[in-house]
Amino acid sequence: MAQAQKEFSVVGKTTPRIDAYERVTGQAQYTGDIQLPGVLYARVLRSPVPHAKIVSIDTSKAEKLPGVKAVIHHGNTQIPWSSGGLTHKRFIFNNPVRFVGDAVAAVAATDRQIAEDALGLIDVKYEKIPHVLDAKEALKPDAPKIAPNGNLSVGTGAFSAPIEESWGDLDEGFKEADRVFEDTYISKHVNNAQIERRVSVAKWDGGKLTVFASTQGVSNARTDIAKDFGLPLSKVRVVCKYMGGGFGNKNQAQDYDYMAAALARVSGQPVKLEFTREDDYIGMHGRWSSEQRYKIGVKQDGTITAVQLDAVTNMGAYRKQSGNLSGTDFYQIPNFKKVILPVHTNTVVAANYRAPAYPQSVFGFASFLDQIAFELGINPLDMFMRNRIRLSKNKTPFTSNYLEQCIIEGSKRIGWNEKWHKPGATSGPVKHGIGMALAGYPYRSGLGAATIRVNPDGTAHVLVGVTDIGTGAKSTMAIIAAEALGIPLNQIQVTNGDTDVTPYSVGESGSRTTSFTGPAVVAAAEDVRKQIFALAANEFKAKPEELDLRDGQVFAKSDPSKKLPLGRIVKDSGDLIGRATTNPSFPKEVEGKSFVAHFAEVEVDTWTGHVKITRYVAAHDSGTILNRLTAESQVKGGIVQGIGMALTEELLIDKVTGIPINPNYRDAKVPTHLETPDVEVIFIENYDPYGCFGGKVVGEPPITAAVATIANAIFNATGKRFKELPITPGKILQAVQV
Amino acid sequence: MAQAQKEFSVVGKTTPRIDAYERVTGQAQYTGDIQLPGVLYARVLRSPVPHAKIVSIDTSKAEKLPGVKAVIHHGNTQIPWSSGGLTHKRFIFNNPVRFVGDAVAAVAATDRQIAEDALGLIDVKYEKIPHVLDAKEALKPDAPKIAPNGNLSVGTGAFSAPIEESWGDLDEGFKEADRVFEDTYISKHVNNAQIERRVSVAKWDGGKLTVFASTQGVSNARTDIAKDFGLPLSKVRVVCKYMGGGFGNKNQAQDYDYMAAALARVSGQPVKLEFTREDDYIGMHGRWSSEQRYKIGVKQDGTITAVQLDAVTNMGAYRKQSGNLSGTDFYQIPNFKKVILPVHTNTVVAANYRAPAYPQSVFGFASFLDQIAFELGINPLDMFMRNRIRLSKNKTPFTSNYLEQCIIEGSKRIGWNEKWHKPGATSGPVKHGIGMALAGYPYRSGLGAATIRVNPDGTAHVLVGVTDIGTGAKSTMAIIAAEALGIPLNQIQVTNGDTDVTPYSVGESGSRTTSFTGPAVVAAAEDVRKQIFALAANEFKAKPEELDLRDGQVFAKSDPSKKLPLGRIVKDSGDLIGRATTNPSFPKEVEGKSFVAHFAEVEVDTWTGHVKITRYVAAHDSGTILNRLTAESQVKGGIVQGIGMALTEELLIDKVTGIPINPNYRDAKVPTHLETPDVEVIFIENYDPYGCFGGKVVGEPPITAAVATIANAIFNATGKRFKELPITPGKILQAVQV
Repeated sequence: MAQAQKEFSVVGKTTPRIDAYERVTGQAQYTGDIQLPGVLYARVLRSPVPHAKIVSIDTSKAEKLPGVKAVIHHGNTQIPWSSGGLTHKRFIFNNPVRFVGDAVAAVAATDRQIAEDALGLIDVKYEKIPHVLDAKEALKPDAPKIAPNGNLSVGTGAFSAPIEESWGDLDEGFKEADRVFEDTYISKHVNNAQIERRVSVAKWDGGKLTVFASTQGVSNARTDIAKDFGLPLSKVRVVCKYMGGGFGNKNQAQDYDYMAAALARVSGQPVKLEFTREDDYIGMHGRWSSEQRYKIGVKQDGTITAVQLDAVTNMGAYRKQSGNLSGTDFYQIPNFKKVILPVHTNTVVAANYRAPAYPQSVFGFASFLDQIAFELGINPLDMFMRNRIRLSKNKTPFTSNYLEQCIIEGSKRIGWNEKWHKPGATSGPVKHGIGMALAGYPYRSGLGAATIRVNPDGTAHVLVGVTDIGTGAKSTMAIIAAEALGIPLNQIQVTNGDTDVTPYSVGESGSRTTSFTGPAVVAAAEDVRKQIFALAANEFKAKPEELDLRDGQVFAKSDPSKKLPLGRIVKDSGDLIGRATTNPSFPKEVEGKSFVAHFAEVEVDTWTGHVKITRYVAAHDSGTILNRLTAESQVKGGIVQGIGMALTEELLIDKVTGIPINPNYRDAKVPTHLETPDVEVIFIENYDPYGCFGGKVVGEPPITAAVATIANAIFNATGKRFKELPITPGKILQAVQV
Repeated sequence: MAQAQKEFSVVGKTTPRIDAYERVTGQAQYTGDIQLPGVLYARVLRSPVPHAKIVSIDTSKAEKLPGVKAVIHHGNTQIPWSSGGLTHKRFIFNNPVRFVGDAVAAVAATDRQIAEDALGLIDVKYEKIPHVLDAKEALKPDAPKIAPNGNLSVGTGAFSAPIEESWGDLDEGFKEADRVFEDTYISKHVNNAQIERRVSVAKWDGGKLTVFASTQGVSNARTDIAKDFGLPLSKVRVVCKYMGGGFGNKNQAQDYDYMAAALARVSGQPVKLEFTREDDYIGMHGRWSSEQRYKIGVKQDGTITAVQLDAVTNMGAYRKQSGNLSGTDFYQIPNFKKVILPVHTNTVVAANYRAPAYPQSVFGFASFLDQIAFELGINPLDMFMRNRIRLSKNKTPFTSNYLEQCIIEGSKRIGWNEKWHKPGATSGPVKHGIGMALAGYPYRSGLGAATIRVNPDGTAHVLVGVTDIGTGAKSTMAIIAAEALGIPLNQIQVTNGDTDVTPYSVGESGSRTTSFTGPAVVAAAEDVRKQIFALAANEFKAKPEELDLRDGQVFAKSDPSKKLPLGRIVKDSGDLIGRATTNPSFPKEVEGKSFVAHFAEVEVDTWTGHVKITRYVAAHDSGTILNRLTAESQVKGGIVQGIGMALTEELLIDKVTGIPINPNYRDAKVPTHLETPDVEVIFIENYDPYGCFGGKVVGEPPITAAVATIANAIFNATGKRFKELPITPGKILQAVQV
């Protein structure tokens, strides 16, 4: 089984968040809580049409409204938003407008109501342009052209198009197959639906811009803002210490940060721009929808011989992210080819949402595998076990891979062998079903930085650029520092998320915080430990390298019984400061991934079409778990999001007008506690040799397998295969009544 | 003359403050500007009697007043205030109360008015104890005993009593003298009278206490609070980024910080305690008054052969500082003895005020020297030049000493030789006078710490614990960093004054900021430069040590024409972090001092007693001047304070009741712009070999000579010697009418 755990003092426990008190008492300052003297409040006017040239904007009435301090639009404010349009140039206001929700103007006023009222006084004349909403329609030669170079979103590097990947020999693979299956699976645009709406507070102090952002990465947000406003990095300060979720749509800086900054510059006052929930749904981005056409060759025993995937992903009016589909990554596929076409349409933009390229395509691929197992008469557990990934596409091993143990432990815990039955085989109107799927997420390492100060009493302060986006990263950094320093956790304070104060962080996206910034914290601890041992060497009459520090006590390795409190060693030293900028990388011969095997039981009411998830078991290989409490919460949260995507969520867009018709929690049917099952989380703990204290990624994996797991359980319950998300009661009723 | 200046890029210019914009636009956040959700407002009840046992405190009526959230007093809150009572233990509330103004209780309520009203509802029964207000009375055997060990304030180390110092052979010195003079000079208690009243905002997040203080030293304030509240240093955060002056009475933490923290703990809400101006005058401290008895032996040519000083200093009810008198330090005295008795009385506490031990005793000693010159028929310029200090009391040289040049340049600039006349020799009712004095301040070095981060575009952030107490220290740190790094000043941002964020600082008192923290900034810059050169070595095909960095360009020392922008070298490095904790010390053979020679012209109206200072020339040896703009302002500010002390300021205490009768700006007669002359500042610039970029101390010296200079000018105008401060119109009229 898993490699033996290393001995840790702090890592690997169930640790409440170090900032729990601030959070539960309301003292934790989120961006919306920031109050600045003389602040103005802003609102955004959005396009009501999906594609139009703005012929004129008359803001004179709005500007005359008492309390209005600034009105900006494409005619007076041309600030590029580089990260908002990676294949064709985007500004914070664009002409033509390219989707319903495209920002047209923004107003800052002395209170929210005045700003809202002023929007209604802006007179915009639109000249409509033909529009296209469907991705496949958009690829037709006569489709209205949204991007200058056409609707296939052609960029460079990760943003090239088509996105192509292949290995092995596809023809040979299909020749080796006993059976070849083809089918199409469809996923829909869903909004990240984080609790905290996007909000930004910006102010200028002379030439220096401060943005209190709601961002998943203060360093990257600063880089974006500095670039697009033409400022040096030292003249941009981005602060975000607490954040109420983003799940990928608050990476870096976004247009609301830019609008707040632009309005602050024009008005000469600080400006707070808080999106409404509707702004949030239509003005930013959700997960890209997809149409996935698979051709899969298998041996009679279920072994995959070849997979071909041709897909279209709908990126909306601008390309902000890859639009890739990577759900096949957790299956051993000897011969493979995929061609993904990221396409522009006159709809809401699609980009990152937790594990961006995964849950929609794990849904497609793992549903189809489950279907093939059915057609071959193979138990899905055997099918998934047989086809689980062992070596990477380059035939190299993984840094660690306990996917097999995840399948074994998870299937045991859910009672697969006792509970699995033929699809649709239970009697009565409420059908029992059980399903599973495999997935995971890549794990990498890279640039991180940290500073640690040891106080004269031996307590310590850690400075890291990470924002705590809800995951407990601040606590994780404290755990890593405590372990690496050798002092108790409760003697550590963490300062985070302020570019004037804290060093570079990669950004809290892609589950990179622990693996990128963690090693820097460890190295900074090493740097300060060296200084401590140099100070202590005299007292111990020993060489610095003969000393160690644990539980706040310095001792000679040769005789741990003789020890001195750290505070005594450093009491006259002011502060000792450790610092590190680290950039570890894996050797070429290995690839990093976390792995998951998910299992669910459902009850499908064939009279109402309602699906109740009665049990959920999630088995994860994320290496060492640094904090079981927050890691378990992450797993549960991801699964809830998967439930929404599987069963209810979809941003509906009116087919004639292009208007999103359900841009809010209730109508877009975000799951609530009522829809949430108890989730049993199993960590197959092991020590990944390249991880920070053996840990791999935790954050993204939970959502990756959830949609497919539920879909497969519904198939087991009903005997009906649902190939289009979400699997609503309506679709179920239609299927079971046939 | 002065040693040739070194070549600097940034140091030594006239540089506007880097935070000027924030300051003038009101964006700079002073402690009083801090707003926290749910904050309560506090007020302090003070003793109306100078010495009494508190028999009972009934707070029930106050507690019933709607809006009152907490009432604390000695009966329910016994928090020691260690730094407030160095020779006998002090709490934030004491029983017995020992002076009018001693804190009795504090109230926190939902608004200021309610807190104020609640004070009137607290019923305190006092049992009066006999009191003593005069220091010499207090030393009599039958005087009421204020401190447990008697009224001579006997502590240890710097707080021992009597304070004694001697060298040479006093008897021999007086034997060598041609003339021996004896006289007594008296100085009064004056309040620091800084613009910003003391204010503190405290909150508890679970076990962690945050104090937004108005302090001259966040690190020391944290140390004090942690000690007296029994907390580890990591659980106390002290923040003070901007501060509206303290001049020594906001060093470390003070009782208002403790009261705010205690009220916050009891109420469970953040608490803001802002002193009234009266609180400020009577509840904290001012400069210790003194009675100085001198015996001075001189040769006929004016050369001092011996000085004996016996003095009493009135420390009020508690000992917070030394009570020493050091005004003789700038004169060459071969045989010397002083005995200072710091004494407790039932009056407002006396402690640090800018150059604590100097201006009152420079007044006494330099007035007396001026008088002796008169009696010997010597021009005061010759008297001061002859007796200026050359070697320290240990006969060692100073790190640098340009006092002679100060005298030469200053006397030339004021036109001493043309303008000096016999005392009282001008005709008419408005008498012209000219006077001078010598002084200065010790300059030391010690513990400092700093962190510097270089951003990926080559701009930089400096983190230092210093608070900008009005002196421009934040700008000075940026200047030092820019010079040491080799990048332009406008590419530097400074973060300061937050113990969670910034490293240790000695505290912005004793003019130590530049000389203690400056070297740490230089060393942190060296640390990060090493990393830069290591990165650049490849590009230049050179060894790191062959590279240099200036004006943001990296180049090979051997060929400065081939250069690369720093931003290009570090663009992929995340942040490079430099750090240093430094503790330089002078060799034993040298002593550090800054020196000043001050000159003033006055017009004394013998009909009104009014003194008008018509011209003031201040010649300073502070080594290299890092920023002429802020240094000049410091000199001017110190002289204005000296003018107040010389002419008008005194905290008057009613001789019967012990009640301070003028505890406010107007009645204590703090000088305004109307009383302020144009001051001509001369810096005798030189490069001190032990200074940070050659700089010595700037902040304290300006006040040291000002009082004596004005007093001597008045003597020259009137022919009357005033031996007791302040030299009010009443005293002048009385003298000239005799």
